[in-house]
Amino acid sequence: MLPIDLPSNAAARERIRAAYSPELFAEAAGNWAEILGQHMTQVQAGQTPVLNWNDPLPNVRLAREVLNQAPTTATDDERVARFRELILVMLSRGHNLHHPHYVGHQVPPSVPLAGLFDALGSVTNQVMAIYEMGPWGVAVEQALVSRLAEAIGWDPARSAGLVTHGGAAANLTALLAARNVALGDAWEGGVARSGPAPVLVVQAEAHYCMGRAAGILGLGTRQVVKAEVDADHRLDPVRLEATLNRLRGEGHPVIAVVACACATPVGAFDPLNAIADICEKHRVWLHVDAAHGGSALLSPRYRHLCAGIERADSVVWDAHKMLFVPALCAFVMYRNRDHSFRAFSQDAPYLFDASAPDLREFDGGLRTLECTKRTAAYGLWGLWSLFGPQLFADLVDVTFDMGSQFHARLSAAPDFEPLHAPQCNIVVFRHTPEALKNATPEELGMFQLRLRREVIESGEFYLVHGVVNGIPALRVTLMNPLTTTEDLDQLLETLRIRGRALLETHR
Amino acid sequence: MLPIDLPSNAAARERIRAAYSPELFAEAAGNWAEILGQHMTQVQAGQTPVLNWNDPLPNVRLAREVLNQAPTTATDDERVARFRELILVMLSRGHNLHHPHYVGHQVPPSVPLAGLFDALGSVTNQVMAIYEMGPWGVAVEQALVSRLAEAIGWDPARSAGLVTHGGAAANLTALLAARNVALGDAWEGGVARSGPAPVLVVQAEAHYCMGRAAGILGLGTRQVVKAEVDADHRLDPVRLEATLNRLRGEGHPVIAVVACACATPVGAFDPLNAIADICEKHRVWLHVDAAHGGSALLSPRYRHLCAGIERADSVVWDAHKMLFVPALCAFVMYRNRDHSFRAFSQDAPYLFDASAPDLREFDGGLRTLECTKRTAAYGLWGLWSLFGPQLFADLVDVTFDMGSQFHARLSAAPDFEPLHAPQCNIVVFRHTPEALKNATPEELGMFQLRLRREVIESGEFYLVHGVVNGIPALRVTLMNPLTTTEDLDQLLETLRIRGRALLETHR
Repeated sequence: MLPIDLPSNAAARERIRAAYSPELFAEAAGNWAEILGQHMTQVQAGQTPVLNWNDPLPNVRLAREVLNQAPTTATDDERVARFRELILVMLSRGHNLHHPHYVGHQVPPSVPLAGLFDALGSVTNQVMAIYEMGPWGVAVEQALVSRLAEAIGWDPARSAGLVTHGGAAANLTALLAARNVALGDAWEGGVARSGPAPVLVVQAEAHYCMGRAAGILGLGTRQVVKAEVDADHRLDPVRLEATLNRLRGEGHPVIAVVACACATPVGAFDPLNAIADICEKHRVWLHVDAAHGGSALLSPRYRHLCAGIERADSVVWDAHKMLFVPALCAFVMYRNRDHSFRAFSQDAPYLFDASAPDLREFDGGLRTLECTKRTAAYGLWGLWSLFGPQLFADLVDVTFDMGSQFHARLSAAPDFEPLHAPQCNIVVFRHTPEALKNATPEELGMFQLRLRREVIESGEFYLVHGVVNGIPALRVTLMNPLTTTEDLDQLLETLRIRGRALLETHR
Repeated sequence: MLPIDLPSNAAARERIRAAYSPELFAEAAGNWAEILGQHMTQVQAGQTPVLNWNDPLPNVRLAREVLNQAPTTATDDERVARFRELILVMLSRGHNLHHPHYVGHQVPPSVPLAGLFDALGSVTNQVMAIYEMGPWGVAVEQALVSRLAEAIGWDPARSAGLVTHGGAAANLTALLAARNVALGDAWEGGVARSGPAPVLVVQAEAHYCMGRAAGILGLGTRQVVKAEVDADHRLDPVRLEATLNRLRGEGHPVIAVVACACATPVGAFDPLNAIADICEKHRVWLHVDAAHGGSALLSPRYRHLCAGIERADSVVWDAHKMLFVPALCAFVMYRNRDHSFRAFSQDAPYLFDASAPDLREFDGGLRTLECTKRTAAYGLWGLWSLFGPQLFADLVDVTFDMGSQFHARLSAAPDFEPLHAPQCNIVVFRHTPEALKNATPEELGMFQLRLRREVIESGEFYLVHGVVNGIPALRVTLMNPLTTTEDLDQLLETLRIRGRALLETHR
């Protein structure tokens, strides 16, 4: 007998065995596959709303009620029946990105099969941080990093990269490395210093996570210097050089210059070669946020948009955007392999095995924000291995081309105003019906917001809004390669019909 | 005709339609369900290795070769056949956490059904940041935050919380909020300042992500002040008070005191009420890292371990640890709702809709590191809704009890040395065979590391190592509720056999 006095866990163990039952799992997984297959068919055929709109409070209330109704005991058949109910609730209250009328954010209707590869990691709970916890997760990550490095134009043996949970985390990681390289002692000593404050020079229309990074990293958002853009929303190299000269004259250390391929608002690609010339001259770290546009590198037709990216010190490239895998799968890439170890530094003796030092190179936790990390690259590795890179070129070509096709329609319509020449699949515009010819810019802007809200809550289309010159506008990202030009025509027609109804209501 | 001249995308669209085919997806999903069901049966029955060990280089090489062999064209049947091959490679090279001999890191064999709920989000690519992108993802997140707040002992209406990608990100988020509250202007102005440097007081055995947070946030790792622990590895309140008095005397602003429930090395739970008394007296933010132990709150038998947690300003609680859902699903909880808006601050007019200000409360992107965020709480919501909170109590009870049961075995064995009295399911010990009675501590430590490597590479058991008083030790986290006491006996026997072989080889 053991010298411990514990209550018997027989009943608890019985309940746990029931929850882990492989038979129950197999039965539920079969139902899951069947329901998701039907769902995918209906959504792609446009037989559902795009967004299933419900107000937040009723949704939260329902989610709480369902939680509270969980039965403690049930037969396997009852569990499967409830499992079906639960996933039907999840589907019927969710957002149908695979609907051809989804033309919203830079989040794709991922290739459904990519979700299955990703989900293999969820069910088996494969994770990384150290190689031995997720050996295959590390292997596919490194294999993909090599391919992406080649696409950028780097030697995989001298560059490095890793996958992390999203573009914001990826940009933060790269800028942390840049900060530590620029300031030397910042990791250990902090950014406290006498003299002019270190600054981050950021494309004026870069993603908000750049300003955030300055706030997080202790630099302060006031130390973000905006690099001005030209009329096409692209970073202006001439003004960048003037800015760097001024900062140098004032004695500010420059952490990095952040350029975009492409920037979020209208999808503008910065002139990277001209920017790299200036950064090299000033010996400043060049970071390129290619979260959205990096995937153009895999398209012979569009790779020219990223010309010069190989001269960056760090690049962020989100596979969960234009490589059409589920979120989150963002790559941070470093031209100089050593820089990949500069972001973080820590002592975790219980994680890293002194008897096997050769494995450290593969212990990704040394270089990522995450300790435990999902095998976030399973989806991309599976998809790439199943279809090859041609699929990615196709996806970029079809969606980017649609940007031009949609812009042509807007230009030809008297009651729509395109606000820029599209460089990719992001297009920003306004609906300008005759009845609003005398509206103030503010009224016209508020009309775009109200109109969008009507349309998205109807479930007919999902599009987003943007802000150009301080005035709201409509914005589409043509993220669904199943969207057709007929759908684009229908979008304009839907906006006209909903717009008329809105104007009548307010009259 | 439209005034644009683009190449025809007919062939590309055809290839894309083939990749998105709902029929192909349904066929693959059915195969996926069948293969994973069989896999789960075999692994739970112990018919596979635990870890499928392969050296990193051959694994990376294979992952790269498979990528390069992707066929551009294939029939649906050929695609399904290749899909099967790919997922079989992934399974055969992965880590089998559901094997009863998995007693490794604080990463659970998640309840397989939880993986299916999570995977629904992967296949449909549901994401959050703003409510309208993932309305059901936000709803289940908020419903769960309410339940976790109640378990902590907070009023859900006055507290707040959110889910993020992992414990490291969660702790960083909470400490960022604490930094911004303590220093006032840090977000905008940066942490540079005159006078004594701001410091972070951290339990001496806290997770390495705390020191990292100081490095990331611009405080500097040298500004981490260790709060000493007692012989049971628990933060010593008397010495904490002396430390705070000293820091105050020297004029250092204190960002926060970080306590653990429990700390990683041996799973020690800090005396939170005594610590809260001191933090209240000194008006210092108390952060409790309850990534692992927070789940004890759902067990009537073990909730006493967290007594006082309701007095913390912020708490981190990982559902992907002791709530047995797949990674990553970590909750950051704030006692004071307003604090949840203090971590970040940004201006992203294209995301947040001025025409619907009431939705901002539900636009979680304002409060998380991520912009696009997976619906990371789908797994927990589904599991909770299917089985209710009793399952979580059962899982905590069975695994924590096993900690005592294993410790009793170690104590009774002449050739094993337990290194602490376990408080949960983490147990650290050394194998001390007769042949090593005269070994130096360093030799004994290296023996533990070599022994562990032999065992894990054999696939017989997966356990990890720890370091106690500077000397390596063996460490188990009894994370698999399907592990039995017979398996624990077998673990000791396996260590003896492998240990003897190792000593003979080195003789």
